[in-house]
Amino acid sequence: MAWSEFDLIARFCADLGSPRADVALGVGDDCALLRVPTGMELAVSIDTLVEGVHFLPGTDPQGLGHKALAVGLSDLAAMGAEPAWATLALTLPQADAAWLEAFCRGFAALAERHGLRLVGGDTTRGPRSVSVQVHGLVAAGTALRRDGARSGDLIFVTGTLGDAGLALAGAPDADLAQRRFVQQRLDRPTPRVAQGRQLRGLARAAIDVSDGLVADLGHVLEASGVGATVQLERLPLSDPVRAQVTRSGDWSLPLAAGDDYELCFVAAPAQRAALEAAARAWDCRCTCIGTVETALGLRLLDRHGAATRSAAGFDHFAVSG
Amino acid sequence: MAWSEFDLIARFCADLGSPRADVALGVGDDCALLRVPTGMELAVSIDTLVEGVHFLPGTDPQGLGHKALAVGLSDLAAMGAEPAWATLALTLPQADAAWLEAFCRGFAALAERHGLRLVGGDTTRGPRSVSVQVHGLVAAGTALRRDGARSGDLIFVTGTLGDAGLALAGAPDADLAQRRFVQQRLDRPTPRVAQGRQLRGLARAAIDVSDGLVADLGHVLEASGVGATVQLERLPLSDPVRAQVTRSGDWSLPLAAGDDYELCFVAAPAQRAALEAAARAWDCRCTCIGTVETALGLRLLDRHGAATRSAAGFDHFAVSG
Repeated sequence: MAWSEFDLIARFCADLGSPRADVALGVGDDCALLRVPTGMELAVSIDTLVEGVHFLPGTDPQGLGHKALAVGLSDLAAMGAEPAWATLALTLPQADAAWLEAFCRGFAALAERHGLRLVGGDTTRGPRSVSVQVHGLVAAGTALRRDGARSGDLIFVTGTLGDAGLALAGAPDADLAQRRFVQQRLDRPTPRVAQGRQLRGLARAAIDVSDGLVADLGHVLEASGVGATVQLERLPLSDPVRAQVTRSGDWSLPLAAGDDYELCFVAAPAQRAALEAAARAWDCRCTCIGTVETALGLRLLDRHGAATRSAAGFDHFAVSG
Repeated sequence: MAWSEFDLIARFCADLGSPRADVALGVGDDCALLRVPTGMELAVSIDTLVEGVHFLPGTDPQGLGHKALAVGLSDLAAMGAEPAWATLALTLPQADAAWLEAFCRGFAALAERHGLRLVGGDTTRGPRSVSVQVHGLVAAGTALRRDGARSGDLIFVTGTLGDAGLALAGAPDADLAQRRFVQQRLDRPTPRVAQGRQLRGLARAAIDVSDGLVADLGHVLEASGVGATVQLERLPLSDPVRAQVTRSGDWSLPLAAGDDYELCFVAAPAQRAALEAAARAWDCRCTCIGTVETALGLRLLDRHGAATRSAAGFDHFAVSG
């Protein structure tokens, strides 16, 4: 059977990540058996990356192994959950040991950094795609949801916005170092797990910026039944994205490009000092970009204080100012 | 954005299956939040079905929705776990509302039959494939694993073997009713969830027959460090499979064809009466097909008691007798 090759592959993946005492049974039976401690809720999320849609043919498999897990860890981060376990459904056109070894290396390195264990998987033949389900743990009732924002809350984002989008656009005007930087941001996103953990009890709502700030903040506002104003000039931008926005007058990159996997969260003004104290120890920026308001919709203010759009549909973010 | 079509699709899936009080947060946030009761272990399994590999282009989407979930439920059944939740990663070439509605109908009907709730998902564009992760609950320490078989145990299977394989082979010699029957067995497998539940405490090891009896029983024997003898004449066969085996003298269908999703399990002889009493209420057969032995390897005996193969590699099961 040709499938025996895939059985070999399955063995590749058998011991990926950090050993954990809460795995009663890992890879190799019909199911994995896992122990969720009393008082903890299980947070789960599944994401698929498809060749030709989410990554190009020929993409470095080690980077893909990293990214496939990072996307899920970012979802756990947005809930404030601790990463625990993952399962991996891998579809490959052929059993390619070198490709798989590199993929597993990228996956395992990130898994170990977060104390996560691969507990199950399925390897099938077909057009290349990767589905990863992550499982995290969070004390019951403390998870960061999308629906907790209230009028008067402050809106924050971690890191910088638009870098991955600039890489996707080829970063034509960036120098070599900048191109490397934005490419790394696209290929090896850093899930903000530690930040998410610290935001429990500080933030009232959170989401990860996977589809672009306007879309993802929009989900928080919609789920919470509120609106917001964001000030464009406050958006945290890397040098190459700032240069691109300045040159073009187009804010699409930081507003609408996805794949940055930063956190966007809202917190009561009374938490601002505690938040900023916590954020001083972070390895990324934490920037206040706007305010939650009663009036529905998302208002973007340019540096002259002029509204550039309301919440209704848009395709482009050209700003005159 | 073209993806808004897929957002619409996501809403299709938002309320699939049976509502459950242990879902703290379902579809629609970065993660679902789930409650595992104290004393229970979480059983998880992920499986992918790929168009052109596991199902043909043009396959009825309602049947596919059923099968994608049935495959996972069969894994839960093999552990003796109670189905609880599922996540669904769906990759589709285009947003096709009619296709998706039918897929969800098939998925939901089976989910409701087993009290299962869809709690999360991801819909992406790409070559058609379906990954489903199932989550079940089982009292800690009571799950049926592969590694519990001991010499002297009896080997059983539920239902009949080789039906799905006969359908895949086109069932050329079967009549119309038989062709319908085996096609149904291939397209709409019945996961043996109730049987798995009752086998906790009765069986010592179990597996589901997804890759064929020899391969799957082989996994149990290998994990348990034992061997076995199976008597071909005892294999439970439907009329069309029996006719095909008799005609050809080839036992490949019941021994090596996959996709039947029956349970194969072993139990101590002392449990036989209790098992047979339980099985009288089942909606499928329960057949003793052989015995676990100390000598490693799997021996197949024909009706004259002659060994037809040892455990080593094979491709074909032609039996002279």
